[in-house]
Amino acid sequence: MIINDEIKAVIEGSAFITLVTVGADGTPHPIIAGKGEVSGDQVIFGIYKMEVTQKNLKTNDKAWIVGAMKDGGPKGYRLAGTAKAAGKQLIFTAQTADAMI
Amino acid sequence: MIINDEIKAVIEGSAFITLVTVGADGTPHPIIAGKGEVSGDQVIFGIYKMEVTQKNLKTNDKAWIVGAMKDGGPKGYRLAGTAKAAGKQLIFTAQTADAMI
Repeated sequence: MIINDEIKAVIEGSAFITLVTVGADGTPHPIIAGKGEVSGDQVIFGIYKMEVTQKNLKTNDKAWIVGAMKDGGPKGYRLAGTAKAAGKQLIFTAQTADAMI
Repeated sequence: MIINDEIKAVIEGSAFITLVTVGADGTPHPIIAGKGEVSGDQVIFGIYKMEVTQKNLKTNDKAWIVGAMKDGGPKGYRLAGTAKAAGKQLIFTAQTADAMI
């Protein structure tokens, strides 16, 4: 269990989640992924565009997400893991979590 | 001029800015950088911790920042450029800007 109740609250409470993938040439590609829904150790996003992100995941499935919220005092987390596109959803699976802020 | 008035408003209006650097092994390192102040094409952050980020910038000065805000309809930007630590400030210089959301 990587995503505990507090991390879930921050991820789901973040107005914007940053999602980072890596291009074939090694260049990081951060995007704003909108709201994410947590289910176990997965975070599920709706896919709207995300062309480069989906292309990157085909050659390198590593991904990072960062979420932060102000309610109840600022809290933020970085999750590292893998991601894959499945139809209209992007499914991120967390492997590690780090508290920030 | 990369950072125009709208981009400046979004970057300065973002509750949290995500800052991405790259480790010597090629691993992206996203962090939450807090508020950034825009001056010309530079965005200046206060340094609080940021140990890994500062270490990364010594071997690779490339950096990316992502900001987003909801006021007046959601808007977000990704800026790519370089960054360096100078005392208690981290100075990011934008080379390109992409609208998101």
